[in-house]
Amino acid sequence: MARLKIVISYDGTEFHGFQRQAGLPTVQGELERALAAVLRRPVEVTGASRTDAGVHACGQVAHFDWEPQQSFPPDRLARALSGRLPRSVSIHSASPVPDDFHARHSARWKIYRYRIATGAVRDPFLARYALHRPGRLDLEAMREAALAFVGRHDFTSFCSSRTSAGDKVRRVDLVAVREAEGGQLAVDVAGDGFLHNMVRILVGTLLEIGRGRRRPEEVSAVLAARDRRLAGPTAPPHGLCLQRIGYADKEEGGGAVEGALNLDARGFFPLC
Amino acid sequence: MARLKIVISYDGTEFHGFQRQAGLPTVQGELERALAAVLRRPVEVTGASRTDAGVHACGQVAHFDWEPQQSFPPDRLARALSGRLPRSVSIHSASPVPDDFHARHSARWKIYRYRIATGAVRDPFLARYALHRPGRLDLEAMREAALAFVGRHDFTSFCSSRTSAGDKVRRVDLVAVREAEGGQLAVDVAGDGFLHNMVRILVGTLLEIGRGRRRPEEVSAVLAARDRRLAGPTAPPHGLCLQRIGYADKEEGGGAVEGALNLDARGFFPLC
Repeated sequence: MARLKIVISYDGTEFHGFQRQAGLPTVQGELERALAAVLRRPVEVTGASRTDAGVHACGQVAHFDWEPQQSFPPDRLARALSGRLPRSVSIHSASPVPDDFHARHSARWKIYRYRIATGAVRDPFLARYALHRPGRLDLEAMREAALAFVGRHDFTSFCSSRTSAGDKVRRVDLVAVREAEGGQLAVDVAGDGFLHNMVRILVGTLLEIGRGRRRPEEVSAVLAARDRRLAGPTAPPHGLCLQRIGYADKEEGGGAVEGALNLDARGFFPLC
Repeated sequence: MARLKIVISYDGTEFHGFQRQAGLPTVQGELERALAAVLRRPVEVTGASRTDAGVHACGQVAHFDWEPQQSFPPDRLARALSGRLPRSVSIHSASPVPDDFHARHSARWKIYRYRIATGAVRDPFLARYALHRPGRLDLEAMREAALAFVGRHDFTSFCSSRTSAGDKVRRVDLVAVREAEGGQLAVDVAGDGFLHNMVRILVGTLLEIGRGRRRPEEVSAVLAARDRRLAGPTAPPHGLCLQRIGYADKEEGGGAVEGALNLDARGFFPLC
C-alpha cells in the first residue's frame, strides 16, 4: 500500500459539509464513492478540514492509501476520479507522499477567504459564493480590529459552543480585509488551524465593527473573556472558501503563507 | 397606466428558460409572482429574449405596465421586487419608458457571450457558467470562420428546425473569439436578433473548426445551403449568457455595440 495526497475544489452549496454522513450528500462521501468505483474496493479518505455545510474549497487536501499500479499513474487516477465526481467537485492533483503524511495532522497552515458583496444590487452569479451585505463598511475600523486576532490566543470566544476541541489556543498569522472591484470585499484569514466556526464568528464580529455597532478596541477584551456570547454572530457559510493548506513538503514552500494567496484584487472570484 | 423597463440578471441553471410555463420554474414566472405580491394585482411581463432552459443573463430586458405612485418610485419598486425574488434573479434597474416602448420589438441589438473552459481540470466554480472542453483549440481557424457570419444572412442552417420563425434573415455585427486567463475562452456574438438556438449552433460549429474537424472556409457554404443538418451540433445551454440589449433611447447610446461589452480579458466571469 502507498499513500496519495489529493488537492480538491468544491462548490459546497449542495453538500452537507465535507465529512461523510449516512444518507446525506457530502464531499467525503462523493470522493469515497468515486474511489470505490475506480479502484473496485472500499477506500477511506481523510480530509484536512471538516468544512461545514455550504462552505466551499478550492484547496482542500485529503489522503488515502492504495495499491500503486504501473499502468495507472496518480495523474490518470485523478482524471478517472474527476470523471466520476459531480461537476461541483474536482481533483486538481494526486501525488505520492510518505506513509507518515497525514492530511490533517501534517498541515502547517491553512488559509480561508470570506467574500462579501456590498453593492446594492444582488449579483446572481456571486450569490452562491459571497455574503450579500449592501451598504458601506468602515474598512479602517475592520483592519484595526483584525490586528488584534494575530498571534497565539485562546479563541474560546470565537468558537462554536458545540465544539469538542479541548485546547482552544490557535495561532493566527494574518487577518486581511481586502477590496476588489464592484464593491466586493474579502477577509483572508491564515493560521495553524481553526476551531469550529472560528472564521465565520471572526467575520461576523468584523462586520459588526464595520457597521459601527462595535468598536475595534473591543476585540482584545472579547478574546480575553473566553465567552462565545461576547463575540459577534456566526457569518453564513456560503461566503467562506478554504483556499489553501500548507505542508512541510518542498512543493508547498515549507510553510510560507506569503505568496500562497492570489492577491490580485481583480481576479477575485474563486477560480482555483 | 405607465410603462416600466427593467434590466434583469439571472443564473439560468435551475430555470426552464425565461418564458412562463405552467408548473415549471421560469424567470418570467418568478417576476410575475413577485410583481403580483408587491403591486397586489396580476401583472404581465414581456421579455426581450426568450432565453432557453439553462441559459443565463446579465442584461435581459423586460417591460410591464403599472399604476405609478408618488410614494413608490421605480427604484423602490426594483428593491421591493428583488426582496421577493430568489437569489438567482435580480433587478438592476427599473425606469419609466414611453408607452410605445416594447422590450422585444424596440430592441436594436443584442449581445450574447458563450464561455468555454479549456483547462484539463474542471473548475467547480465555473462549471455552471462555462462549457468545459479540455484541450487545445485552433483560435486562428475559429477567428477566420467567425468572419463569415458577419453581415446579413439567411441563418436557416444555424436555427433549430423546431423554430416557428418565418423570416430567417438576421444581421450579425460581431463574432469575436477572445482568450482570458487560465484557459478560458469567450465567443461574443452581437446582432439585431437571433433565431432559436442560433448562437449555440454557431458556437458548436466554431468548436468543430477549433478542433480541426471542419475547415473555416466551410462556413459560407453551410450558410448558403440553408440546411440545419450541415452545421455543427448545438452547444450546451450553460455556457451561454445574454449580456446586453441595445435600444434607441439615449441611455443605451443609440445602438452602438462598441463599448457595450466588457472587453477586459481578466474580468471574465459574468459579474454584471
